[in-house]
Amino acid sequence: MYPLNTWYVAARSHEIGSTRPLGRHICNKPMAFFRQASGQVAAVEDFCPHRGAPLSLGFVQGDTLVCGYHGLAMGGDGKTASMPCQRVRGFPAIASYPVHEAHGFVWVWPGHPSQADVALIPQFEWLGNPAFGYGGGLYHIGCDYRLMIDNLMDLTHETYVHSNSIGQKEIDEAPCQTRVAGDHVITERYMEGIEAPPFWQMALRLNGLPDDRPVDRWQICHFTPPSHVMIEVGVALAGNGGYHAPDAVKAASWVVDFITPETATSMHYFWGMARRFKPTDPELTEKIREGQGKIFAEDLEMLERQQKNLSAHPERKLLMLNIDAGGVQSRKVIDRWLAAEQGVVA
Amino acid sequence: MYPLNTWYVAARSHEIGSTRPLGRHICNKPMAFFRQASGQVAAVEDFCPHRGAPLSLGFVQGDTLVCGYHGLAMGGDGKTASMPCQRVRGFPAIASYPVHEAHGFVWVWPGHPSQADVALIPQFEWLGNPAFGYGGGLYHIGCDYRLMIDNLMDLTHETYVHSNSIGQKEIDEAPCQTRVAGDHVITERYMEGIEAPPFWQMALRLNGLPDDRPVDRWQICHFTPPSHVMIEVGVALAGNGGYHAPDAVKAASWVVDFITPETATSMHYFWGMARRFKPTDPELTEKIREGQGKIFAEDLEMLERQQKNLSAHPERKLLMLNIDAGGVQSRKVIDRWLAAEQGVVA
Amino acid sequence: MYPLNTWYVAARSHEIGSTRPLGRHICNKPMAFFRQASGQVAAVEDFCPHRGAPLSLGFVQGDTLVCGYHGLAMGGDGKTASMPCQRVRGFPAIASYPVHEAHGFVWVWPGHPSQADVALIPQFEWLGNPAFGYGGGLYHIGCDYRLMIDNLMDLTHETYVHSNSIGQKEIDEAPCQTRVAGDHVITERYMEGIEAPPFWQMALRLNGLPDDRPVDRWQICHFTPPSHVMIEVGVALAGNGGYHAPDAVKAASWVVDFITPETATSMHYFWGMARRFKPTDPELTEKIREGQGKIFAEDLEMLERQQKNLSAHPERKLLMLNIDAGGVQSRKVIDRWLAAEQGVVA
Repeated sequence: MYPLNTWYVAARSHEIGSTRPLGRHICNKPMAFFRQASGQVAAVEDFCPHRGAPLSLGFVQGDTLVCGYHGLAMGGDGKTASMPCQRVRGFPAIASYPVHEAHGFVWVWPGHPSQADVALIPQFEWLGNPAFGYGGGLYHIGCDYRLMIDNLMDLTHETYVHSNSIGQKEIDEAPCQTRVAGDHVITERYMEGIEAPPFWQMALRLNGLPDDRPVDRWQICHFTPPSHVMIEVGVALAGNGGYHAPDAVKAASWVVDFITPETATSMHYFWGMARRFKPTDPELTEKIREGQGKIFAEDLEMLERQQKNLSAHPERKLLMLNIDAGGVQSRKVIDRWLAAEQGVVA
Repeated sequence: MYPLNTWYVAARSHEIGSTRPLGRHICNKPMAFFRQASGQVAAVEDFCPHRGAPLSLGFVQGDTLVCGYHGLAMGGDGKTASMPCQRVRGFPAIASYPVHEAHGFVWVWPGHPSQADVALIPQFEWLGNPAFGYGGGLYHIGCDYRLMIDNLMDLTHETYVHSNSIGQKEIDEAPCQTRVAGDHVITERYMEGIEAPPFWQMALRLNGLPDDRPVDRWQICHFTPPSHVMIEVGVALAGNGGYHAPDAVKAASWVVDFITPETATSMHYFWGMARRFKPTDPELTEKIREGQGKIFAEDLEMLERQQKNLSAHPERKLLMLNIDAGGVQSRKVIDRWLAAEQGVVA
Repeated sequence: MYPLNTWYVAARSHEIGSTRPLGRHICNKPMAFFRQASGQVAAVEDFCPHRGAPLSLGFVQGDTLVCGYHGLAMGGDGKTASMPCQRVRGFPAIASYPVHEAHGFVWVWPGHPSQADVALIPQFEWLGNPAFGYGGGLYHIGCDYRLMIDNLMDLTHETYVHSNSIGQKEIDEAPCQTRVAGDHVITERYMEGIEAPPFWQMALRLNGLPDDRPVDRWQICHFTPPSHVMIEVGVALAGNGGYHAPDAVKAASWVVDFITPETATSMHYFWGMARRFKPTDPELTEKIREGQGKIFAEDLEMLERQQKNLSAHPERKLLMLNIDAGGVQSRKVIDRWLAAEQGVVA
């Protein structure tokens, strides 16, 4: 299923304002996220100990989340702070979840709180790096989060699902290679002297480069557990060293994919792009975000229908071809984590 | 769950015309209500004995409800009266339900018909009383009917759910008292010298009284089984005796709540207000009805989300605070009725 | 339930273009239909052997259906034809289904392919006959396909469900007769000297006949297994021999009903009308199609609500009156087929 003793992206910072909480299921746990007066985000079980109302329908007051039904004020630690005309000391606590906010993302640890270590939150080159411009969005998709990992670790699907934007026949035809380094899975593919597809033509133009010249193109997919897929993508004018070409003749980005299980068959998909060119141009950020949003939306129907097919036929063995190696290896890492977690629990 | 051997409000009179029946589930029983030529309302199982079609898709003819599929004419007693070109004597009967109509409401008895006694239908001061003006509506809500009883027997929720209309901080802060007299549960709260909230300011103005003067306010919730909650509410210009003040200096009403189980987790909520001022002013009735409708709609999301939380966690014990005493005592009465009913059955 | 070793109408020819496949469940089997370069329609399981994606989201290339996820090209025989950069010889096959296309309809055999014999596809007088003009449509209905057979083999429902178009009191009052000839069930009803109902008045006018004269009317319902109901309907100016009257004084048609199970409680309803007058007038075809579509849509709510009632009360015995004889006898034929099929399987 999914590891619990790990950090997941739960929200983007702007989703949690200073007065209204955010209700969201993470790993099948209903959580209410709220921003305390101190500015810190807290996460508690979305269940008022008084009468079971969802706390996410309430409002923030100081460091507490006030239930919108009868006014119980819940602390960020899951203990009732106060309630009008009530002594609350004996009230049962609800679960609270370790939260960490950094660089626009809110991370949550749905497992044993005692094991939550902020140092375990992954660092990425682009995250909080002023050399990069970032834009992104959130999709809710009705499929097992691992189908999205498969999707992203096998980009041959671009040729079919995204044939009008980033797909091109050469992806299909270029061999890809997968290697594993500890818990890190890398699948890479390089294409040389090809025509840039529409999305990359746009990126070249935006970057002040000609869009009609042959390019070298690369896709380097990095999986790190539990479910982060960062993809180095880009094109360089052909013959300048491709991936290693100087910035002046290429357009390069990280595709950002934080994949957070909601239930066994649904997920929150935080997608985005961190580009290494014109990082401080907000119009460019918006333009790319809009383009990427349309392209990434093309996967939704496929993934949800694939999930339906698999749910109807749990007995079927799927093929594991060379192009699937990235997903297969990523699932092996997840399975190791799950086994370790069950060992811990047992 | 819910008692069956009792009267519930099934419909408002105008919902059952002279030609079209009304299909409605009451206590998980599908019923077709129709108005016979005599003017009397009858209720039969919504299941044609011919081929199982819902009789509520048919039409009324004389004292029968004609099935809209093949023309079987069903009597109000659940016996087939006729069918074109058929001898119907041997047709199996379907269930019929005792019905009583009075003062604009249609009551139904979903239990053993032999025990249905019209004298058991509760009488209320305002019901059919020309000194009162009445207006109301119907909401369908996806929650156990008892969650609505809890809601109405603990009006501290007004401070939170209805903060812009009838809620105010003083409700929360004023202690309430609950007492039980046989099957009758009463929770009352009195506030003195407070500012009238917006809804009551409107009522004072409509009643020709100033809306900016301190008032005494009262809420006296009466539960009677199986699920009727009548609430005496009002404000009087402060210092005139509050609840006991003369009519000339107050605005007072009964909040009317007939709560009828549809299934274990859904209900029909017949809400209304019977006011003791300007009883014959139809514009005022409509104005109040519209205002009340908006306020009472604010409870729906809370109740349905509370139900989802409780359904997901049936093992959780909820708190029973002093403010919950009204609901707790009301549920005790219901439980007594249920136990008695099972004794009868056994 | 439903026989599998038989032909069902799966689609109308125009639903399956030359580039896009059609996904449809037939007898609870998800199928992807596609038109090969040769023009032939093929049907395969809607499940890509690579990763379980629905093939019906793909596109046609030559004689294959290309999966829209990663480009696997599936042959009409359920064997993978090719995939970019892959050796596909060892890929597991998926199911394929015998298909036959004729006169605008695509038939499919969901059972054992070895038993599929095109000679078993029924022939109807009107099918592919230039003396007839045909128009029709498709409705998806949430009920057991046998409820639609019952519906069509007992046209007394027209008096009630279709009271404004083809229904009239005389249907109800005229006795019907049912006879069985092998697997063929016939229910017929004749009415003499009656007023034509609105639909038939229109047909008379369109046929150049007066619409205000008494007519003789007939309805001859033919059931053939598994679920085809063809109904001879028409009116003739009274006293000319009714059903046997010469063409010049009558308006006569076949009502066409191909009923295809989707699941145990849903079906595809291919309805239409094959008329024996002005067969080549496309405006007339469209006018009749539109009228019939509205009339036949009136059955949907009744059938779906009937199904809900029956699903809630599987223990209830329904009545089997003389008017139900057509449906009862048709179900006996189906039951015989089902028993024979299970014998074959066992």
